[in-house]
Amino acid sequence: MSQLQRIVIAPAQLQQQQITLTSQQQHYLMRVLRLRQGDRFIAMDGKGQWWLAVLAETTAQILEQMQVQTELPVEITLMVALPKGNGFDEVVRACTELGVNCFAPVTSDRTLLHPSPQKLERWRRIAAEAAEQSERQIVPTILDPVPFNKGLLSVTGDRKYICVARGNAPHLIASLQSIPPSPPYQGGLEGSIVIATGAEGGWTTNEVENAIASEFQPVSLGKRILRAVTAPIVAVSQISAIVEISKNSENPGLVP
Amino acid sequence: MSQLQRIVIAPAQLQQQQITLTSQQQHYLMRVLRLRQGDRFIAMDGKGQWWLAVLAETTAQILEQMQVQTELPVEITLMVALPKGNGFDEVVRACTELGVNCFAPVTSDRTLLHPSPQKLERWRRIAAEAAEQSERQIVPTILDPVPFNKGLLSVTGDRKYICVARGNAPHLIASLQSIPPSPPYQGGLEGSIVIATGAEGGWTTNEVENAIASEFQPVSLGKRILRAVTAPIVAVSQISAIVEISKNSENPGLVP
Repeated sequence: MSQLQRIVIAPAQLQQQQITLTSQQQHYLMRVLRLRQGDRFIAMDGKGQWWLAVLAETTAQILEQMQVQTELPVEITLMVALPKGNGFDEVVRACTELGVNCFAPVTSDRTLLHPSPQKLERWRRIAAEAAEQSERQIVPTILDPVPFNKGLLSVTGDRKYICVARGNAPHLIASLQSIPPSPPYQGGLEGSIVIATGAEGGWTTNEVENAIASEFQPVSLGKRILRAVTAPIVAVSQISAIVEISKNSENPGLVP
Repeated sequence: MSQLQRIVIAPAQLQQQQITLTSQQQHYLMRVLRLRQGDRFIAMDGKGQWWLAVLAETTAQILEQMQVQTELPVEITLMVALPKGNGFDEVVRACTELGVNCFAPVTSDRTLLHPSPQKLERWRRIAAEAAEQSERQIVPTILDPVPFNKGLLSVTGDRKYICVARGNAPHLIASLQSIPPSPPYQGGLEGSIVIATGAEGGWTTNEVENAIASEFQPVSLGKRILRAVTAPIVAVSQISAIVEISKNSENPGLVP
């Protein structure tokens, strides 16, 4: 079932168990994927719901709602100082696959890129495509880019981390594993996590101090120096692993 | 000190505390990095040694050997079914940053790319550049691509994992954390790990069975479906985190 193709639809496209397909969606389903009338596919609303649908021509009929659970048990907001060039495209693609809920692009002291509105549109399209491909239930939100200090004040999370290179910050995974499970113990890390990664050259001392003042905890991703594009993918890989095993395993990953 | 620029030199370039620079290295140091005579940089032999050097013109003088430790406490061999297009470039770049020691590219049943010798040269150049930038001590080895079944027999490691999508394989991190520390207990995971990730469409059933017969353990990287380029980066991020915290923290990551 999950091997079926998936497309994201807008709420207005669905009425009385029938989906009105846009011309792009008709093109994608029939020309690109080569589905025919009567073939099945999955329609997602990008907010958690999946439906099994059967293709007519300009419409599709809903057969049933599907039960899926591919989301992480925590909500991750990834705050990224925009890397140069098209680097953020790759960050959005990979971190959507990994389960990020919200991208908060920021401009920092060392940011070279000041993105155009077209970029934002492009990132949102990449997020939707990556959510379809990776079988996410939701399509992550991408916030408008803001200066880092403004972003610090606007993002919210139960735990907030800022990744720093060099120095003696504790490892992100050690920090995550040192969180005592919240009572009543349900065998997993829950709630929301914000993680911030820097641009080429890292955060300035001033930026790290401002983050600490906003209750971010400095953490390390290891002893080697990661590129601005690699760091967010690594951070989210590590968070997703810890929260997924702490939720699923009989032997929780969170040790007191 | 570690903020100095780094270049990799061949053993033959170093004689009696003096480095004979190639014309490319001279160009890189003086034109690209804009160093001048008397400026310091770091020369690496790509096998673990770093030296502090001072630039003359076509040569450099070694000032002292440097003590560094940026390598992981385990040796990681990454076996990757070659992704399409230039996807393996990004895998080599990011996984070198993350600490991989050896890349074993393989062709699998679903591999579309059959690489030219020029590709191999290109991957080795990318690995050297990424090792310099990420402050690795060693430059990873890149083996010649071989068919998957041949690769299964030629790679060696204390623990071998194959990443599979879908199904009920245990999570990679749960598998790593369930390894009992080897006696005498030295506070960390040691030895060597082989991890294999598939091409677009994943491994075939036959390939997974062959891997299991070669003592590979199937593991999951989470509930979402990762692209062929993302999966190896995620797998190595997770291994590096677990081995680094198990080595460094007072509270070892390996729980019995």
